[in-house]
Amino acid sequence: MEIKGVQDFYSDEFAHCYGCGRLNHDGFQIKTRWEGDETVSVYTPRKYHTAMEGFVYGGLLASLIDCHGTGSGALAYAREHGIELTEYNAPRFVTGSLTVNYKKPTPIEGPLEIRGKIKEIKGRKVISEINLWAGGEICVTGEVLAVLIPENFGK
Amino acid sequence: MEIKGVQDFYSDEFAHCYGCGRLNHDGFQIKTRWEGDETVSVYTPRKYHTAMEGFVYGGLLASLIDCHGTGSGALAYAREHGIELTEYNAPRFVTGSLTVNYKKPTPIEGPLEIRGKIKEIKGRKVISEINLWAGGEICVTGEVLAVLIPENFGK
Repeated sequence: MEIKGVQDFYSDEFAHCYGCGRLNHDGFQIKTRWEGDETVSVYTPRKYHTAMEGFVYGGLLASLIDCHGTGSGALAYAREHGIELTEYNAPRFVTGSLTVNYKKPTPIEGPLEIRGKIKEIKGRKVISEINLWAGGEICVTGEVLAVLIPENFGK
Repeated sequence: MEIKGVQDFYSDEFAHCYGCGRLNHDGFQIKTRWEGDETVSVYTPRKYHTAMEGFVYGGLLASLIDCHGTGSGALAYAREHGIELTEYNAPRFVTGSLTVNYKKPTPIEGPLEIRGKIKEIKGRKVISEINLWAGGEICVTGEVLAVLIPENFGK
């Protein structure tokens, strides 16, 4: 059974993200869902996503934290406002700022698990604290300030 | 004429980065060089590197700032220590931490220019302040703490 993520509930126009868009077939298509009060995404790096051989490229790790943060923002906002997710009504968040701390080299074998806690929901903003796990250890930590997409985005 | 970047002077074992490794043929292969006292890299996004249609995916922008920061670290450390770059003696930096602020949506057409200023060099650490330009505007700003790779990296 495929576990759906909040990204499966974005409207088509918001579903082209290289990191998490269900309509971007070249991208990572990560899915973010609740597990209790934590948000979870999982991604298995491709063999060429190397920093040094055997370890994951930092830009991919930043990318996963970024998309996990916008997905977490959407989930938290929907829960806070009692929005039941149906196709395709999920709120769409974009990243305002991103901080990533590389604690130790991240092994490239096997899946990476990205887990978030909601630190603050205020108006259109959601802040998440995020840990990225590999091989049973936290390798990267981060924080994302996600913002409900403005009506005039890109205009 | 191909303008070489510091990444062309990394030893083979350090040249597999998805963002900037000359030996990673699936990757971005960005090159970072001096222009006066600023460091510069240029990258043209692929058509599928979208956030929303028409705009660049934030994870790619974070990735470019990340690799630009490690390249800037290598350049600054080499200059500080009077190391003349030859094949393949460049110092190799890895990212300790990364901060990215998304100021405005980044248009996907045309090249992105990433420009860095060295804020601090201290021992094995180099901090760079980085602006990412597109279409004549700064769309993203960031800061990278880069660290000379430890002897025991990944061990």
